[in-house]
Amino acid sequence: MAARGTATPGGPADGPDGAGRTAPARLVVLVSGTGTNLGALLEASVEPAWGAYVVGVVSDRADAPALRRAEAAGVPVHVVPVADHPDRAAWDAALTRAVAALEPDLVVLAGFMRLVGPAFLGRLGGRVVTTHPALSPSFPGVRAPADAIAYGVKVTGATVLLVDEGVDTGAVVAQTAVPVRDDDDTASLHERIKAAERPLLVDVVGRMARRGWSTSPDNPRKVLLP
Amino acid sequence: MAARGTATPGGPADGPDGAGRTAPARLVVLVSGTGTNLGALLEASVEPAWGAYVVGVVSDRADAPALRRAEAAGVPVHVVPVADHPDRAAWDAALTRAVAALEPDLVVLAGFMRLVGPAFLGRLGGRVVTTHPALSPSFPGVRAPADAIAYGVKVTGATVLLVDEGVDTGAVVAQTAVPVRDDDDTASLHERIKAAERPLLVDVVGRMARRGWSTSPDNPRKVLLP
Repeated sequence: MAARGTATPGGPADGPDGAGRTAPARLVVLVSGTGTNLGALLEASVEPAWGAYVVGVVSDRADAPALRRAEAAGVPVHVVPVADHPDRAAWDAALTRAVAALEPDLVVLAGFMRLVGPAFLGRLGGRVVTTHPALSPSFPGVRAPADAIAYGVKVTGATVLLVDEGVDTGAVVAQTAVPVRDDDDTASLHERIKAAERPLLVDVVGRMARRGWSTSPDNPRKVLLP
Repeated sequence: MAARGTATPGGPADGPDGAGRTAPARLVVLVSGTGTNLGALLEASVEPAWGAYVVGVVSDRADAPALRRAEAAGVPVHVVPVADHPDRAAWDAALTRAVAALEPDLVVLAGFMRLVGPAFLGRLGGRVVTTHPALSPSFPGVRAPADAIAYGVKVTGATVLLVDEGVDTGAVVAQTAVPVRDDDDTASLHERIKAAERPLLVDVVGRMARRGWSTSPDNPRKVLLP
């Protein structure tokens, strides 16, 4: 295959696309906010058949409510504030060290409000996923629900994508459609998208953890979940 | 309302958003190709409760198979070839005259492979709809299904939109989502989109014909179907 990710990159091959894995995948979750997606992942991980468990939660903010959620679940937390570092590159390197030390099979950006940098992607790229509250490539950036309302679309959605150096430009792993209603404002639409995004993320992370993933030999942007 | 269309623009008001119409709306359909969407509209119009009937079919191509379909249904056809006119503006004016003479309440571009011009939009704009085989604003232009495959999206769809001077930039009237499958090529995806587009178009044209439409006072790009 042209490109390939498994839940154990660099580890011993355990069959095509990771099939045949026996140990659960190691998940690291990056958060900045309330952590509702983290909560959904923690809840899913209670069931061993889901195939992954959260080995650590990393945040850029010591006051992120998501950290309380992690601690309540007994998951180690690590805080890497931007302000503790002389520049963005130093922060990127520190974040990379903190996450890599947890030996993740898969990293999930779950409401992490910073762009990860080149050191992070150089070390962990290909196994970092995030969510975007729109059907990419529509409405990239941080105002996606507001932009969807302004454009007047009738259907938007949620996207799980692999993180690359762009803003919401990575390869699409999964998408789900969400209707826009005539009486929606940005807040009501965003809530409906988040309600669709959580189960999508849980489903996709579980599938990636259990069976790995790959990209099409014909098209490196086409992600295949076996 | 900031902008308003009804199935009888310029005619006597027949209630908010056109509610209360008794006569069926006059539909003109523009075609260049096989006319599968025209066929669906003709079929729907057999049922008076649908609210519209096709008063004429206009094409830029004398050999468009869609014209045979119209003739078989007893609908008058008009051909306005580009080559019969000295320039694009003259063609635009001739097309406008041919369509306007049919006194349409609503004009549907159904596989019409030309951009309509400023004369056409000046005379008929606001009551011209078309379809686009993607979820606008994603993938504008004539290669939408191929572009969706290349991008690697998992969800695309069909859009019914009001025609403006841009390419697939008009206000969205309706959208429906269509899944992309791992084994899709451009042709198989396009077929699935067209299969979703036809009933969407028939439903939306019927609703516009029966009850009119409007745009939101807050946002002229937000089309409301009562």
